[in-house]
Amino acid sequence: MLDQIEIVLSHTTHPGNIGAAARAMKVMGLSNLVLVNPKYYPSAEATDRASKANDILETAKVYSSMRQAISGSRLIVGTSARARSLPSKLVTPRELVEIINRDLTRAPISVLFGVENSGLTNEELHLCHYHVYIPTNPDYSSLNLASAVQLIAYEMRLAFSEMASLPVTEPSRNERAISRQELEGVLQHFDQIMQETGYLQEDNKKQLDIRMNRLLNKAALTLSETNILRGFLSSITQYGKRLNSKVLDKAEKQEGE
Amino acid sequence: MLDQIEIVLSHTTHPGNIGAAARAMKVMGLSNLVLVNPKYYPSAEATDRASKANDILETAKVYSSMRQAISGSRLIVGTSARARSLPSKLVTPRELVEIINRDLTRAPISVLFGVENSGLTNEELHLCHYHVYIPTNPDYSSLNLASAVQLIAYEMRLAFSEMASLPVTEPSRNERAISRQELEGVLQHFDQIMQETGYLQEDNKKQLDIRMNRLLNKAALTLSETNILRGFLSSITQYGKRLNSKVLDKAEKQEGE
Repeated sequence: MLDQIEIVLSHTTHPGNIGAAARAMKVMGLSNLVLVNPKYYPSAEATDRASKANDILETAKVYSSMRQAISGSRLIVGTSARARSLPSKLVTPRELVEIINRDLTRAPISVLFGVENSGLTNEELHLCHYHVYIPTNPDYSSLNLASAVQLIAYEMRLAFSEMASLPVTEPSRNERAISRQELEGVLQHFDQIMQETGYLQEDNKKQLDIRMNRLLNKAALTLSETNILRGFLSSITQYGKRLNSKVLDKAEKQEGE
Repeated sequence: MLDQIEIVLSHTTHPGNIGAAARAMKVMGLSNLVLVNPKYYPSAEATDRASKANDILETAKVYSSMRQAISGSRLIVGTSARARSLPSKLVTPRELVEIINRDLTRAPISVLFGVENSGLTNEELHLCHYHVYIPTNPDYSSLNLASAVQLIAYEMRLAFSEMASLPVTEPSRNERAISRQELEGVLQHFDQIMQETGYLQEDNKKQLDIRMNRLLNKAALTLSETNILRGFLSSITQYGKRLNSKVLDKAEKQEGE
């Protein structure tokens, strides 16, 4: 299970933090590091702070956008050390590992860490199924980035390293959660049809997109459910075509008379 | 209780680690730092890495021997990230906080962290009532000193701070989950529209009802999300009406001619 967890660092400013995060991961048995637009990377400082966890840095994937970085993930989790108003369900690190334990098929899992000081952006937050709140001192919540990675990695190790090999029944492909990329396909389809029926308009598009994303993230759609929703959406297009062709029929009849 | 816990760093080599440990403590609400024979201290590097946790450094007590440093403690705990043969009872961090919770009168508590690389000496180990083993990757157990402090401080905060629970904000009526009755209204609305567009038919109705129920149950819809879905469904009816009225228009025109 630890192999299925990706630590995703977004726009990290200090390369030392990247190296320290790699070390924090390796010491708990995590190995998949993903960097989104790091400010300075590769960097001697990162390598220095990694302290023999260089293999993690060497195999790290680097992307220029968060969307690309998480496109294959089935469970996306944001992290925060501050209480914020958040669009996704707020859980403690311990609750998170319980959630993962309850549905081991939602791998690969991406755990997102925002830029130092300001954390994840609103856009990044909206991609998340859950939001992990690391409990901190309300008067001083300045948790170091690598420390945050350390705490999450520690909870992951506690939960998954000695995991009893429960007989996991492998769900069929149809019953597994879809990836972020597949979800974006569904969202676009909704967008298109909502525009067709006139529900989506210029002035409500942004808000509607945010809310549909959140709603469908909560639903954790399987492929078979995705097929139902897309089938329904396609049926609306068909419905429109049938009615339009009646309009044409009448028009033709009219011309024919 | 957090006030009763002392973090004791023995013979620390890198002043940066002292600063980072101070930050790790403060972020979890610990404030008592004790230094035994630090190699370089005070140090600009320590202050730099403390990042606004300078107050912890300023009030830190510095001793030249471990015996002096812990003379007032009622519970003394050593830490290690490596499995070693140890003279005191080995517990996990989580077991430690349970032990403390069972007998809150054993304060003040000293948690001892040894020198980087080699850890606590045998002499120091013999002073301990318990020994905390922080679970790590057996192939790479090189846990950074400040990270070890961070993990222990985190467990302490979870166990002893009432602030450790999630910040609860009472959701507005719109953001509360809907009732089963309200959900049934949504399901019926879907049913009706899916029939209208031709997606729902005699032979798939039963299966579709089951799946839509499951899907929307998973989504745990709020009232505002319910309004979006119902708004969208109503827009399909309106769309159909508009197209139908075009059909009528044509028909009327035809009659009128």
